Amino acid sequence: MSGKVYLVGAGPGDPELLTLKALRVLKTANAVLHDDLVSPEILKLIPAAAQVHNVGKRCGKKNILQEEINFLMVALAESGLRVVRLKSGDPMIFGRAGEEIEALRRANIPHEIVPGVTSALGAAAAAQIPLTHRRASSALVFITAHQASESEAANWSKLAGSGATLVIYMPGQRYAEVAAKLKAAGLAGETPCAVISRATTPHQRTHRSTIAELHRSPKLAAPTLLVVGEVVRFADPVALAQQFGAPDLSAVKDGALPTPLFATPDFETTEEPLP
Amino acid sequence: MSGKVYLVGAGPGDPELLTLKALRVLKTANAVLHDDLVSPEILKLIPAAAQVHNVGKRCGKKNILQEEINFLMVALAESGLRVVRLKSGDPMIFGRAGEEIEALRRANIPHEIVPGVTSALGAAAAAQIPLTHRRASSALVFITAHQASESEAANWSKLAGSGATLVIYMPGQRYAEVAAKLKAAGLAGETPCAVISRATTPHQRTHRSTIAELHRSPKLAAPTLLVVGEVVRFADPVALAQQFGAPDLSAVKDGALPTPLFATPDFETTEEPLP
Repeated sequence: MSGKVYLVGAGPGDPELLTLKALRVLKTANAVLHDDLVSPEILKLIPAAAQVHNVGKRCGKKNILQEEINFLMVALAESGLRVVRLKSGDPMIFGRAGEEIEALRRANIPHEIVPGVTSALGAAAAAQIPLTHRRASSALVFITAHQASESEAANWSKLAGSGATLVIYMPGQRYAEVAAKLKAAGLAGETPCAVISRATTPHQRTHRSTIAELHRSPKLAAPTLLVVGEVVRFADPVALAQQFGAPDLSAVKDGALPTPLFATPDFETTEEPLP
Repeated sequence: MSGKVYLVGAGPGDPELLTLKALRVLKTANAVLHDDLVSPEILKLIPAAAQVHNVGKRCGKKNILQEEINFLMVALAESGLRVVRLKSGDPMIFGRAGEEIEALRRANIPHEIVPGVTSALGAAAAAQIPLTHRRASSALVFITAHQASESEAANWSKLAGSGATLVIYMPGQRYAEVAAKLKAAGLAGETPCAVISRATTPHQRTHRSTIAELHRSPKLAAPTLLVVGEVVRFADPVALAQQFGAPDLSAVKDGALPTPLFATPDFETTEEPLP
């Protein structure tokens, strides 16, 4: 008798940004395989009786191979368990879900994908940066800072120079290198950009800058995202400081608010002047 | 005394793909301004005492100007109400959130953005198409089928020809025109693509094809998305048919499942053979 595997997006960090479906599936899991980046508050939602495996693969730390994750996931499901493979953000974006789905198909394990709020959307909401805008950008590109091959690097350059809003996942802290690549792709030094660190968590920090000044950005803690493009001008530090504030009870007319599920964070934002 | 405005993403369609935060905010709204595309099941979650305004702007139907939406939103908040501006998908992607945020800032109305699962992620999960894949695509592009200017059209072509996975929002039903533009951007006729209609709802339909055969696709009901790129090969029609099935109760070892919040849909998928 086979179990089932759910590939579930845990969202960008704030536990309230889980979907209702993700919560339901997580609450009934017999086993959970999670990434390093999934927040502790979300891990607390896992039933006490469930097995929990951290299969995180962050740089420098323990190195679990993708094949080992696939093997464990299949083995647990084959023993009849309801397995949740919990990934930060959305499983289908930079999450190797494709390889895990192939392993599940090969082993004939029933499976289902539960999408999540990818971190770019969490960061955009938190920093109030509209990712598309009628007057500034009609397209949106998600890329990483690393390219495996020369043809990937050439395509990266095409994408970066297209005029679309860029969201660079996992940009690392070598800001000068990333800035040089963006300039090589044809972007002007005064193009606005923002580094957003640990978006939607109590530790969120945002630094707004330009490509020319990006190298002077403070080294913010991972996970970070780099948003590049004219839309970054619309980010509002004042509005930013209101994000994740306590709900305004005075505005409620039809009775008491439900208690927020999680504590209200407090965070920091800095910026370079825009030209 | 001013109220507050929440710009909230309603997700791709399935009400269970609302975030916990979206549900909390919606449950305490005094007024809701929603798009046409927000599903009826989600609208049922609005408190009975709240004002509800459909400010949908779909082609051919009534024409509410963006300025009128901004005016109504500000006026309701200025009268002290807790206002939810409910948008399908995520507010920051092709949703004019930028213009609404500007109006709120000008009027000094406290506001907050609640991100949602954008429809591309819902569609990818439902059709089991990984949007990035180590062996197929290391970048992801969100665009629409319409370009306002010649420079936008040139950039569209750069993006389409970059080798990234493309998700075309609002492609319409003129599949032959879209296919011609994709070919003009340099994409091969045998590039796989999929039209996904009303993803994650009970009416979901998917048609997998190639750019060369796209014109023969059945005209699927809006809202649709067109996913283009090698990753579409990974879509699995068998797996697709398992999506949104009832939870497998036999696999549950630690007690009864919570009842799914909403009924189980049943849907259809078709495909052209891939080369």
